[in-house]
Amino acid sequence: MIVNCVAYRDGERLADLMEEEISDYLEKPDCFVWVALCDATAQELELMKKEFHLHELAVEDARHGHQRPKIEEYGESLFVVMHLLEQVKGELRLGEMNVFVGHNYVLSVRSHSQRHFVAVRERCEREPHLLRHGSGFVLYALMDAVVDRYFPLMDQLESELEEIEEQIFSKNAARSNIERLYELKRKVMLLKHAVAPLMEASGKLFGNRGPEVCARGREYFRDVHDHLSRINASIDTIRDTIGTAIQVNLSMVAIEESEVNKKLAAWAGIFAVVTAFVGIWGMNFKSMPELQWEYGYPLALAVIGVTSLVMYRRFRHAGWL
Amino acid sequence: MIVNCVAYRDGERLADLMEEEISDYLEKPDCFVWVALCDATAQELELMKKEFHLHELAVEDARHGHQRPKIEEYGESLFVVMHLLEQVKGELRLGEMNVFVGHNYVLSVRSHSQRHFVAVRERCEREPHLLRHGSGFVLYALMDAVVDRYFPLMDQLESELEEIEEQIFSKNAARSNIERLYELKRKVMLLKHAVAPLMEASGKLFGNRGPEVCARGREYFRDVHDHLSRINASIDTIRDTIGTAIQVNLSMVAIEESEVNKKLAAWAGIFAVVTAFVGIWGMNFKSMPELQWEYGYPLALAVIGVTSLVMYRRFRHAGWL
Amino acid sequence: MIVNCVAYRDGERLADLMEEEISDYLEKPDCFVWVALCDATAQELELMKKEFHLHELAVEDARHGHQRPKIEEYGESLFVVMHLLEQVKGELRLGEMNVFVGHNYVLSVRSHSQRHFVAVRERCEREPHLLRHGSGFVLYALMDAVVDRYFPLMDQLESELEEIEEQIFSKNAARSNIERLYELKRKVMLLKHAVAPLMEASGKLFGNRGPEVCARGREYFRDVHDHLSRINASIDTIRDTIGTAIQVNLSMVAIEESEVNKKLAAWAGIFAVVTAFVGIWGMNFKSMPELQWEYGYPLALAVIGVTSLVMYRRFRHAGWL
Amino acid sequence: MIVNCVAYRDGERLADLMEEEISDYLEKPDCFVWVALCDATAQELELMKKEFHLHELAVEDARHGHQRPKIEEYGESLFVVMHLLEQVKGELRLGEMNVFVGHNYVLSVRSHSQRHFVAVRERCEREPHLLRHGSGFVLYALMDAVVDRYFPLMDQLESELEEIEEQIFSKNAARSNIERLYELKRKVMLLKHAVAPLMEASGKLFGNRGPEVCARGREYFRDVHDHLSRINASIDTIRDTIGTAIQVNLSMVAIEESEVNKKLAAWAGIFAVVTAFVGIWGMNFKSMPELQWEYGYPLALAVIGVTSLVMYRRFRHAGWL
Amino acid sequence: MIVNCVAYRDGERLADLMEEEISDYLEKPDCFVWVALCDATAQELELMKKEFHLHELAVEDARHGHQRPKIEEYGESLFVVMHLLEQVKGELRLGEMNVFVGHNYVLSVRSHSQRHFVAVRERCEREPHLLRHGSGFVLYALMDAVVDRYFPLMDQLESELEEIEEQIFSKNAARSNIERLYELKRKVMLLKHAVAPLMEASGKLFGNRGPEVCARGREYFRDVHDHLSRINASIDTIRDTIGTAIQVNLSMVAIEESEVNKKLAAWAGIFAVVTAFVGIWGMNFKSMPELQWEYGYPLALAVIGVTSLVMYRRFRHAGWL
Repeated sequence: MIVNCVAYRDGERLADLMEEEISDYLEKPDCFVWVALCDATAQELELMKKEFHLHELAVEDARHGHQRPKIEEYGESLFVVMHLLEQVKGELRLGEMNVFVGHNYVLSVRSHSQRHFVAVRERCEREPHLLRHGSGFVLYALMDAVVDRYFPLMDQLESELEEIEEQIFSKNAARSNIERLYELKRKVMLLKHAVAPLMEASGKLFGNRGPEVCARGREYFRDVHDHLSRINASIDTIRDTIGTAIQVNLSMVAIEESEVNKKLAAWAGIFAVVTAFVGIWGMNFKSMPELQWEYGYPLALAVIGVTSLVMYRRFRHAGWL
Repeated sequence: MIVNCVAYRDGERLADLMEEEISDYLEKPDCFVWVALCDATAQELELMKKEFHLHELAVEDARHGHQRPKIEEYGESLFVVMHLLEQVKGELRLGEMNVFVGHNYVLSVRSHSQRHFVAVRERCEREPHLLRHGSGFVLYALMDAVVDRYFPLMDQLESELEEIEEQIFSKNAARSNIERLYELKRKVMLLKHAVAPLMEASGKLFGNRGPEVCARGREYFRDVHDHLSRINASIDTIRDTIGTAIQVNLSMVAIEESEVNKKLAAWAGIFAVVTAFVGIWGMNFKSMPELQWEYGYPLALAVIGVTSLVMYRRFRHAGWL
Repeated sequence: MIVNCVAYRDGERLADLMEEEISDYLEKPDCFVWVALCDATAQELELMKKEFHLHELAVEDARHGHQRPKIEEYGESLFVVMHLLEQVKGELRLGEMNVFVGHNYVLSVRSHSQRHFVAVRERCEREPHLLRHGSGFVLYALMDAVVDRYFPLMDQLESELEEIEEQIFSKNAARSNIERLYELKRKVMLLKHAVAPLMEASGKLFGNRGPEVCARGREYFRDVHDHLSRINASIDTIRDTIGTAIQVNLSMVAIEESEVNKKLAAWAGIFAVVTAFVGIWGMNFKSMPELQWEYGYPLALAVIGVTSLVMYRRFRHAGWL
Repeated sequence: MIVNCVAYRDGERLADLMEEEISDYLEKPDCFVWVALCDATAQELELMKKEFHLHELAVEDARHGHQRPKIEEYGESLFVVMHLLEQVKGELRLGEMNVFVGHNYVLSVRSHSQRHFVAVRERCEREPHLLRHGSGFVLYALMDAVVDRYFPLMDQLESELEEIEEQIFSKNAARSNIERLYELKRKVMLLKHAVAPLMEASGKLFGNRGPEVCARGREYFRDVHDHLSRINASIDTIRDTIGTAIQVNLSMVAIEESEVNKKLAAWAGIFAVVTAFVGIWGMNFKSMPELQWEYGYPLALAVIGVTSLVMYRRFRHAGWL
Repeated sequence: MIVNCVAYRDGERLADLMEEEISDYLEKPDCFVWVALCDATAQELELMKKEFHLHELAVEDARHGHQRPKIEEYGESLFVVMHLLEQVKGELRLGEMNVFVGHNYVLSVRSHSQRHFVAVRERCEREPHLLRHGSGFVLYALMDAVVDRYFPLMDQLESELEEIEEQIFSKNAARSNIERLYELKRKVMLLKHAVAPLMEASGKLFGNRGPEVCARGREYFRDVHDHLSRINASIDTIRDTIGTAIQVNLSMVAIEESEVNKKLAAWAGIFAVVTAFVGIWGMNFKSMPELQWEYGYPLALAVIGVTSLVMYRRFRHAGWL
């Protein structure tokens, strides 16, 4: 589906185009065309391929989807793949943003994503002094918008981790902690896969030998790269912390179990003594004088009670109870 | 066994050759010969060595087999080793594909593999405008075909992992989980060994200083490299997740055990109290007044029952039962 | 809030300036202006941006805060972000120091931090022969001051670790150890995030191709970098040790539990034997001769006692008790 | 001990030399001398040092032994240290092979190793067209022979690992598994230390800027390097697998223990109920009507039996028994 | 404290100097001064700073101490920091050796170390043909001496590890093993910190672009570097092995515990059966015919004994006892 198809000159909106008009405007000097597709069909991609002379391999990648984030140069044009991550009902859904950029065109293809990028076009049109830089600036604006959407996601993952951390030393939470940590790790890996390859690829956009298209605005691409570095560092910390948290959780299970074991051992000990005593006085020997005493029974109970109490206190003191 | 032996000119099939004719065609300009061997004998390899002037070390590698995936330059010709992985009855079987490429020949030697590569030849012949690029394009087509076969394998490993993940928090599955995780890890390592060295080696094919043979089609080799990077990244994630899953599985065992322990402790406690009571009333003291009461027995049972119930409730409340 | 705004020439304080005068002094040769802001408002930043012609992206970073430590070149000027870490009531609080440096100005913006940097200005004014080097030396002095504040923090983390290490092999401390290790790890990560990126970035300041501003004083920047390397190495050791300590702590829990288990097993064994004996003599068989013996009862007690003692000794010998 | 001392010209054996004649032949053009020492004494080394003008540091290394594998350039000559690993009675024994190579000599010094390298000389003399390349080819042949001896070792380590893997999920094997894994790891580390540094060092022999001596036969040194890479990759896999196997073994211990625990808990439960019943009917209350019933006893036994059976079935069903 | 202060020319001792004479000899051609300080005071350092024109930052580092090992160039002079490790009563003590080297002077400052380096001076004076190389050779000799002292330390750590390894599979040693492993790890980290940064830094001394001072003797510095690499590799192995040993130790605890548990379970089972039997025959049912049998009691004992024996054998067979 074609969302938008506009020609720009000198940072100003020139005209909304029909698909057939694209090639006319591509030939005009100082003019560039910015087309936005959404969940594009094979036909639409084929059409765009012809209009913009896109490379077959790049178009094929866009058609297939499921690419890693990357930035590829085909001659003087760029093909950029970015991941879109959207939280839908507690699940992270993976969409894709493919951008084809040449010196006089930008073609963005959004897939499997419900949040549009109209705001990017609006921002660009609000800043004509920057849009004047041409298609490179549009690429920056798109990348910046995609990357900016990673931040709230990362904040959310961080606060999920903090929630788990608050539970990690409390009792009886080991099972839910480990389930949540595992689920969190899965999400973090998704974000990592979106961020790390893009960070690496974007590092080439602002060096001295970066592509021509990005030449006028290296600081902007460095800024995008810097944002990605920041997210990436945070992700690495979260991953590292999840690893430690899993270990700590296991330690807590072991510690709790050893406490239960001590309790069990202490009570077992007390009752073993009680059982020994009552067993002894339950024996059928003919001559057991204490059985005949008048206060034998209460005395026996007293002995049993006192012994138990003494043991209880000792276990308590030793921290077993 | 010689599967095929064909000469091509200008992207078109020129002639099916006998082995002896190869050297004739090698001398014709703009012409290249593409030979496909399968489980080649030492004699066949020796013959090919002579026809194509292959380097001894490369031929020896092809004869021995069990090489790591690699791409080696011998003067202006290339020697490529790739792993073929085929799932046979739940087991991954390792085959090998050796390709010798010069500017006017391609020799592919397939070993220990049941799936042929005839489709590659068909594809090449269907695209004469690309085949015109010469032997380099054939190499690309072969590599592309080998790499494309890794994808379903990887998908399968991923779905095996997902199956295990669904079981990982359910009770009584720890033993089978750990067995499956270990087996999965083994398979993943096999795939890793096929992919990682080839990825590394293929990275040199599309740079500016890449081999002459691959000069006309750098984008295609970059595409292969990109596919390999994608698989490699997925493999790394699977490995990482397997590691975490093993840890989590161990945690689940510990958690389950601690739950069993608590149950055991709780019931042991209840029955210890019961035993203590019946022991007391089983003692043979002469003067134990309650034994003489008319309703002593039911009262005793009631005391025992109520105490047990109270304890049961408390343990229940504490989450031990 | 503007803390200070001073012009310097030849290493000497020239004049305290009003904000409006800044641009006058920027034009004078051999003269540089050093402005210190603290928790700057957007207006103040906007004003400074105009006075010093700062790059929009850098100013935006300073406004937003929450940046990673970094050193960015914008043309001939530098933008430096450093983390300030202050221990407040046992918690590490994260502040930020942003420094903009050009050949004739230094603008430092401190945020979320209670400890001022007035001492840096005093030090610089005490060393006019070094301040004469210009704004680069001020940058060094600021970086040096920030980095010097990391050392006591690191010492503190190290002594916390040592305290935990003293507890790690003592009994009943596992729970508090693991909690303290986890908390310590969290703090260490904060320090790591302050140090590692800054170390990496500062490595570029003293090479031959470093920025012009830092040209006269490469040794000084190398010194800062060296300090950062030292802290970084210590942090890595602490992290590594924390990891080992967590493992060791878990081992100690397991060892302690196995000791408890052995004790439990030993006592359970002794009492099981006692119970068996008294049970036997509590049976109601008509003809049990020993029950009729005159010294049957004390004999029985003796048998029980001796058996228990023998078992006790054996368990003791085996190290179970 | 001098094993051999031969002069070669043009790939052909020229003469067997006495030690004193060496220097004569070194001066002849197109001629090189190949000396093989075994467990050389200090005197022999001193003599060789003088004959070949070897560098003092290299000779010292050869005398001391216990070097890491390495390849060092001293001017135009090379000093190569390789590890020899021999399995003697299940133990890996570490020997050393030092090779000094100049353009007109090869001196090999074998230490602490029982397997000689006479076959290398034979191979070289069988291939005069290669030996004609000079001392560089001899170095290759020696390295190739050393590296080829690593393969059977690695195969053996791999099959030891496979044997352990077959035991890893079987019961009661945890203790021997862990012992064997630890022992295997130790051996693997020995092999790793032999292979990894040599691999790294040999990587420099076949580049464009490699030493002069190796110039005529870069493909051969690349082949050695490739073999080393292959072994190194296998070692890394074995190490990784050992790590996982240790974890899995621990998991299996935990799982088995939890199964034992469940069994213990189940039987304890059943017998606790039995004990409670017989305890109740062992009480001495005066009025316990069921004790007077004619079939009271068999009924009691029946009640006890049925209860036990029901419990047994339930535990069985729950997988605890 | 000034240990020594000597001027050398042409590899020969020229004169023992007073501090004031140093500057005179510095001006003489082909002459260099070698001063050795020990636990230098601030005054002594200040004096040396003036005599040799040392850089302030280097002197400050020497005064403060607690530096990481490093090699820094200040113009044409070098500042080298090395760690001295001495085992005192089972504890590793950390000293420091700072060396300032210019083309005509060497100043070594030893701190917190009881072992002097007089032997280095003696060795140098014994080898005038090498000492003639100038101050660079002295630096080599000092580095060589420091590094040589690491070897016995490493051997000791290795034999401590071997001692622990011998205990690791024996019973009841888990607690002491883990304590010793932890302590060993601490020592290894100390050595690592001494070796790794120095190895890295020394790598720059023997390249083509190394400092002028080291130009005549690159092989010697490479030798030092090679020694450091060897120690470093050994340290890494020790660390890796300690990690595995901790894991293995934990496994052994778990295995031992599971064996104890099985024993406990087996004995508990046997005695539970005994208790059930005696309990049954201790019931007070009126009509229990076997109680009236003449040989009822011995029969009962026999039944109990046989049952116990059968169970014992079965448990034994299953490896639980």
